[in-house]
Amino acid sequence: MLHTHEAASQEFVGRHIGPSEAEQAEMLSVIGAESLDELINEIVPSRIRNAAPLALDGPRSEADMLASLRAIAQKNALYRNYIGQGYYGTLTPNVILRNILENPAWYTAYTPYQPEISQGRLEALLNFQTMVADLTALDIANASLLDEGTAAAEAMTLARRSAKSKSDVFFVSSHCHPQTIEVVKTRAEGLGIKVQVADEAEGLPECFGVLLQYPHSLGGVSDYTQLTADAHAAGAVVAVATDLLALAIMKAPGEWGADIAVGSAQRFGVPLGFGGPHAGFMACRDAFKRTMPGRLVGVSKDAQGKPAMRLALQTREQHIRREKATSNICTAQVLLAVMASMFAVYHGAKGVRRIAQRVYVTTTLLRSLLQSAGYQVQNESWFDTLRVQTTHAEALRRELDAAKINVRWLSGNEFALSMDETVTLADLQNLADVLTRASGAATIDVAALNAGEDTFVPVTLARQSAILSHPIFSSIHSETDMLRYLRGLADKDLALDRSMIPLGSCTMKLNATAEMIPITWPEFAHIHPFAPSAQTTGYAELVERLSAALCEITGYDSVSLQPNSGAQGEYAGLLAIRAYHQANGQGQRNVCLIPASAHGTNPASANLAGMSVTVVASDSNGNVDVEDLKRKIEQTGDRLAALMITYPSTHGVFEEAIVQICDLVHEAGGQVYLDGANMNAMVGLAKPGQFGSDVSHLNLHKTFCIPHGGGGPGVGPVAVRAHLTPYLPGVLNEKGAPDAAANGRPGPVSSAPFGSASILPISYAYIALMGASGLQRATEVALLNANYIATRLAPHYPVLYSGRNGRVAHECILDLRPIKDACGITVDDVAKRLVDYGFHAPTMSFPVAGTLMVEPTESESLKELDRFVEAMIAIRREIAQVEAGTADAKDNVLTNAPHTAQMLTADEWTHPYARSAAAYPGHVSPVGKYWPPVARVDNAFGDRNLVCSCPPLEAYMD
Amino acid sequence: MLHTHEAASQEFVGRHIGPSEAEQAEMLSVIGAESLDELINEIVPSRIRNAAPLALDGPRSEADMLASLRAIAQKNALYRNYIGQGYYGTLTPNVILRNILENPAWYTAYTPYQPEISQGRLEALLNFQTMVADLTALDIANASLLDEGTAAAEAMTLARRSAKSKSDVFFVSSHCHPQTIEVVKTRAEGLGIKVQVADEAEGLPECFGVLLQYPHSLGGVSDYTQLTADAHAAGAVVAVATDLLALAIMKAPGEWGADIAVGSAQRFGVPLGFGGPHAGFMACRDAFKRTMPGRLVGVSKDAQGKPAMRLALQTREQHIRREKATSNICTAQVLLAVMASMFAVYHGAKGVRRIAQRVYVTTTLLRSLLQSAGYQVQNESWFDTLRVQTTHAEALRRELDAAKINVRWLSGNEFALSMDETVTLADLQNLADVLTRASGAATIDVAALNAGEDTFVPVTLARQSAILSHPIFSSIHSETDMLRYLRGLADKDLALDRSMIPLGSCTMKLNATAEMIPITWPEFAHIHPFAPSAQTTGYAELVERLSAALCEITGYDSVSLQPNSGAQGEYAGLLAIRAYHQANGQGQRNVCLIPASAHGTNPASANLAGMSVTVVASDSNGNVDVEDLKRKIEQTGDRLAALMITYPSTHGVFEEAIVQICDLVHEAGGQVYLDGANMNAMVGLAKPGQFGSDVSHLNLHKTFCIPHGGGGPGVGPVAVRAHLTPYLPGVLNEKGAPDAAANGRPGPVSSAPFGSASILPISYAYIALMGASGLQRATEVALLNANYIATRLAPHYPVLYSGRNGRVAHECILDLRPIKDACGITVDDVAKRLVDYGFHAPTMSFPVAGTLMVEPTESESLKELDRFVEAMIAIRREIAQVEAGTADAKDNVLTNAPHTAQMLTADEWTHPYARSAAAYPGHVSPVGKYWPPVARVDNAFGDRNLVCSCPPLEAYMD
Repeated sequence: MLHTHEAASQEFVGRHIGPSEAEQAEMLSVIGAESLDELINEIVPSRIRNAAPLALDGPRSEADMLASLRAIAQKNALYRNYIGQGYYGTLTPNVILRNILENPAWYTAYTPYQPEISQGRLEALLNFQTMVADLTALDIANASLLDEGTAAAEAMTLARRSAKSKSDVFFVSSHCHPQTIEVVKTRAEGLGIKVQVADEAEGLPECFGVLLQYPHSLGGVSDYTQLTADAHAAGAVVAVATDLLALAIMKAPGEWGADIAVGSAQRFGVPLGFGGPHAGFMACRDAFKRTMPGRLVGVSKDAQGKPAMRLALQTREQHIRREKATSNICTAQVLLAVMASMFAVYHGAKGVRRIAQRVYVTTTLLRSLLQSAGYQVQNESWFDTLRVQTTHAEALRRELDAAKINVRWLSGNEFALSMDETVTLADLQNLADVLTRASGAATIDVAALNAGEDTFVPVTLARQSAILSHPIFSSIHSETDMLRYLRGLADKDLALDRSMIPLGSCTMKLNATAEMIPITWPEFAHIHPFAPSAQTTGYAELVERLSAALCEITGYDSVSLQPNSGAQGEYAGLLAIRAYHQANGQGQRNVCLIPASAHGTNPASANLAGMSVTVVASDSNGNVDVEDLKRKIEQTGDRLAALMITYPSTHGVFEEAIVQICDLVHEAGGQVYLDGANMNAMVGLAKPGQFGSDVSHLNLHKTFCIPHGGGGPGVGPVAVRAHLTPYLPGVLNEKGAPDAAANGRPGPVSSAPFGSASILPISYAYIALMGASGLQRATEVALLNANYIATRLAPHYPVLYSGRNGRVAHECILDLRPIKDACGITVDDVAKRLVDYGFHAPTMSFPVAGTLMVEPTESESLKELDRFVEAMIAIRREIAQVEAGTADAKDNVLTNAPHTAQMLTADEWTHPYARSAAAYPGHVSPVGKYWPPVARVDNAFGDRNLVCSCPPLEAYMD
Repeated sequence: MLHTHEAASQEFVGRHIGPSEAEQAEMLSVIGAESLDELINEIVPSRIRNAAPLALDGPRSEADMLASLRAIAQKNALYRNYIGQGYYGTLTPNVILRNILENPAWYTAYTPYQPEISQGRLEALLNFQTMVADLTALDIANASLLDEGTAAAEAMTLARRSAKSKSDVFFVSSHCHPQTIEVVKTRAEGLGIKVQVADEAEGLPECFGVLLQYPHSLGGVSDYTQLTADAHAAGAVVAVATDLLALAIMKAPGEWGADIAVGSAQRFGVPLGFGGPHAGFMACRDAFKRTMPGRLVGVSKDAQGKPAMRLALQTREQHIRREKATSNICTAQVLLAVMASMFAVYHGAKGVRRIAQRVYVTTTLLRSLLQSAGYQVQNESWFDTLRVQTTHAEALRRELDAAKINVRWLSGNEFALSMDETVTLADLQNLADVLTRASGAATIDVAALNAGEDTFVPVTLARQSAILSHPIFSSIHSETDMLRYLRGLADKDLALDRSMIPLGSCTMKLNATAEMIPITWPEFAHIHPFAPSAQTTGYAELVERLSAALCEITGYDSVSLQPNSGAQGEYAGLLAIRAYHQANGQGQRNVCLIPASAHGTNPASANLAGMSVTVVASDSNGNVDVEDLKRKIEQTGDRLAALMITYPSTHGVFEEAIVQICDLVHEAGGQVYLDGANMNAMVGLAKPGQFGSDVSHLNLHKTFCIPHGGGGPGVGPVAVRAHLTPYLPGVLNEKGAPDAAANGRPGPVSSAPFGSASILPISYAYIALMGASGLQRATEVALLNANYIATRLAPHYPVLYSGRNGRVAHECILDLRPIKDACGITVDDVAKRLVDYGFHAPTMSFPVAGTLMVEPTESESLKELDRFVEAMIAIRREIAQVEAGTADAKDNVLTNAPHTAQMLTADEWTHPYARSAAAYPGHVSPVGKYWPPVARVDNAFGDRNLVCSCPPLEAYMD
């Protein structure tokens, strides 16, 4: 009998899950559980357990999954896109495509919170910041934001914080991209800001801030010098949404006075991908730098006094500022920012200028062509976009469709076209043929039309200053040099392709190759977000299937895939709750209860959704203090909007009282927001939508295998029960405007209809490959792995917070505070010492200061778990020597960690411990040892001496 | 005016060529040349210079080239293949596809002659050898051969060297694959061996060797125990062509007495690729190991006494044995052997057995299905193939074609089908539907037919022994572990993605990503070599276009792309000369003149082509000694067949006398074979086919950008003038038999019609991207780069052999013999010390013992050239200290090189030099320094204690 299908289809489950069946049995015996089933019964409260297996298709083999996903992809139609509107054709340099986007060394990396093992991506991000600051001619840029729309919304709040004007009006130019306007409106609504959209040419109202678009969405380019001066005089802050490529040849915002510039770096080599992910950006004047949102890479120095990069000003981040945070931005778009910065490194200053000039000239040629063909071009200035009127609209639509060309239709007889670096003379000839066929004009020979003078941007608008003047943008010419630069950077970093990354709450699991392959297929990569829906039925099917699977997994009734980060998911969920209360005449409900142990984005998101935050205490087991909750509910009365709770808790425990807690909130008229960050502990075992929660966001970049990309992209779908379905965020239609069904909904939270659509195939593939049984098994093994670590490390480090039967959930918290008290060794020392053992540190001091939170995930094999456990035990022995006084309290292997190769090969050795003890402790093999490129980084020095663009090369000299 | 097209299309040229225009100017000034043109005039004799630019299409942009190649690819039709005949469907594990085949760390590596920087690929190859030896149950296996056919030919010659029988007959079973029989016949012809093809069941003739096929090409599986015993008794050696997958469940050749096993590892995860490249293999009894052809990886120890791998028994290789060589095998199929070995590591012993069992069961089910559908299955035993008779042939052909299914047609009413791991129940149902539609039988429900007992191979044929019992084949279960294993191995090695590999005569230039992308497109990767030609018009177009371009570049009239290595190209070229002489009634012409400085493959190939070799002396400038040549021509008289000459010479010089030399040979009735290994110095400047040569082979893996893959694949086209065109190797037709046009030609030299067809897109892409002007510029810069190095290093190391005006060609030879004489520092010491500086050594002791030959290629930038030059100068200073006695003669940074991190972090330091001097000499940066995983490897120890399969794990313990 042929078991072909069964055997092959099961295979991936065993590939995704680290421990083999035999290893699982061994681990169960170590932790003293009878069986995996028994262990799960011990951990997960029976009253929340699923009654039946998930109703999902069985596991599929990799080949089968890829074939089925290929069939879905092929339902998307590949048209030539001239739609523009913030999304442009671009040529991803192949060396970047293969060696960044398709390379696990880059895409499996985590956010660079541990700078010593992140110098490669930090350098790439510093290049990004340098590039953005340079092109915008502003003082400082951050390391990316989610997209242009949210970046504009962040600019609005930054302006409000900084403006002299006390107005509550934010002026938005009607020349902005429609989707940007919608996202800004959504954000303003929660914050009580009044958005006024108009043409700035008609004068500015009194306002605290202004958002312009440069060049305009429909092509015109205005000189904003005077307008900016006027706005400044009136106490307003001027922000501008702009296009980095245009700025290579056009006067930069910083040169005409703008305070803030935002936009998208998409056209620097990042595929359209139906709208995302792409790197949004923000740059601003120096005066705003300490209140600028988003992550910021800065240069500091290491313990050896050498330059070293790290995330700067982290105290601005939500995990520190919490409900005082002014932004909930957490995930950035690191992988895409890295690609965009490498596009600039690859092309260099000259190349980027040449590309921009080429786009301008192409557009100029197109203008002649349109006029010859009998079309009326509306705009008198342009970079890449022309707005056109025609009396042959019907014929033109038909001809365009036949030629598989998309333009941006504005109305019955008006459309716009945007040019980009991919457009060739042959493309223009095709376009000319279409245009003349439709208008009945004589055919045009584009080559002949092209035989004129060289054309340049008019002087008033032309950029006179140099661009990209840092040497990194002129040092690399050949592909060989580029390849080696990328390899060199990747080698500095520790990512999942080299070792476990046991970060509690971050779920660093396998990002399987088969899941990654489809995202670069042209049928997913080269679709414009505002392409006609008839061309995107493949994406529609993908969205529908993935949404249905996520509903089945979570027990909710509907889901929106639009939010492009977990925090955006939280925000969308809270907006839904807010809109629900308003629709029920309960608009006064604006207090959100949040446990003390919550992720920092929770209170920040509540804030942004216009709610005030009341903190609920935790008890000594890390659970919500039910008595305190009751008190807070009572105190809040009919102002109670919601409780935000993470489950299993951020302490890594399945709280027994969860159902009671949900009931208490519901009885008081509130809604329950269950943060899905820890969903990896529940898939297949429990459904929050069925045990009491009303809304959750998921992190597809945690539980559902989208790689972290070094700090983004992420996807944070928001899932709700039926009563909240009408309040999911509005979806933008093909014009970037809210769709008809959006009536009464909050507006969109992302610039693109489905956010970071092009990476959804990853999660779809994961679910298809695992099937119901595989997903559940993954959860079970995640719990097993965490309990194995807890059991093995408990004799060496106290494990804080366990649940019923002394078990933890999917992560465990190791308490290092007694060690610090005893001998001064800190959680930092242990984290950095782990680098010497070849590991990324666990999560530090969250949710409890002075602890390490370890989440192994199901993907780590017993061998790797043991390697980690043995490293931690060996470190505990090293600590014991400090405690015992046999090692120096200040000069020991921990306080000096991590040790670079240069430190350990120094001619003179002045430390009281042996070199070998520092270099190859425990079972660390000399062969293949990871060597950190820098010693411990001094964060405080860097924050005091803030440098957030590439330093001059001399800084790196010894 | 829009310069879009021009600018973009030129861009790649600058990406391929390392130095920018400004850097080229700087370098010209250093070497004292007026201009690049002037330099070329100084170097290349005017009388051989091309009169006109190459007539090739202009450069194309990467996007344009990829689009045009995509259009060619799409002319190939993707059919479901059941053809078999040595080529089977297989599922390349995605983690292997992305992280080996598409990863420059693997594909840009060189042959592991420098073991200290090659431990990763050496380990992968040792896994391959272990896998092959284990599955065949023989004692030792080599590190791959070119394909099954050439491996069988090598088995024939190995048998002849080893057999007791003095017969000149080699018996070949008629059950062998037809293409294998043809390749064996070709080889036999040159060596005077009589090949007798028959069914062994009818008894063996007197012979020195036997080649069987197990299982048979058409499916039957014979028990050869008795036959083998009889052959042994008669003094014959028994070789068998076999299938590694079948051996997972069938009694192994070593178990029934075979002496040699050969075959292809293709179905272990390597795509069909229209016939190649794939890894051929050979395993044999211990007694044959020192005469076995091909590369062999063995375990030795390093200077620290730790296990370390390296190529074993290199004294067998042609560059040592030269005209005494018994094989011209040089290039292997390392990249493909690595993939195949990783397939076994990924699936493990259990998985490989399960796949084999699945294939067997699928075939068994197919058998029932065929019978139910009214077809007559001919074979009573089988593994994966069934031979079938039908009376509905015409209808069946029609239905198969409509369903896009290929089978192997044997005659009008007979065909065969081979199953593989990709076949699903759905595939069988499709097949059943086709079969019943054609035969008119009732439809068959395959699922119902399948509902029987499990089936197993009959006990007499079943393998009882364990397979793949080394722990490496059961230690990796998850994709995470696999990914980390691959990354760990890659990190041990130094490839082009990290630094220059300045290997003289090897032309390690950029292998651009855009050139690599097409090879994994399904339309190139999944085509069977014996698919009907109507399905492979894309490949036909590719072959035709590439051939035409190579003719234009070389000045020859026709080219065969069939040879899958340079040495095979030489062999094919010499066979053409031989056949030409025979056709002209000059069969006595069988002496080949070869200069002393020739590559070792030259005399070896001449030998194999049935020629005897006469060595011609070189003069003191490294040129052919024309007087000696005249003497040798005269002495040889009418036995002169050919002169083989490398041009520019292996000494890196454009000999002025080349035209005179060619004339002398022609006047004496001989043919000129110009070895194209150094073609990178001539493309666009000179055409050997026009300045006097009759035939050349090219190395597409040198001049035309096919990556070296760690030691293969290679492609060695043979190009000839018109009078030799009729004598190019015969091309196999769709049945694997010589095509009609083959009459009078030598037989095929490779198992597949176009050899390693699936990597031809790389060279096609390179030529398209560069265009005529770019190719010529590449050559010019290659000459510039070499002269820059020669000029800068000449004050420090004597540069041997320069040509007119004191210039070298594309490489230069540095003489280290005076250093050795002065202070004992050897060329080895310098080569290994370069590792400490982060470089792969230049070519050592070829063509002159005690020298280093440096070929930078055009792809290295000035920065990298300077880094190399400065390393060499710094090393010269280190040598000077030994010479001066300020450094110890035996214990210094050179003799102890390379230094591992472990050596340099040792607690005790006993050397007279500083650690830092060893670790970070010259400009070596501590950050990103390459650390070799082992210290200097002891070759002699390993050869004395030969271990060529994975050692037990304990060997790696300290």
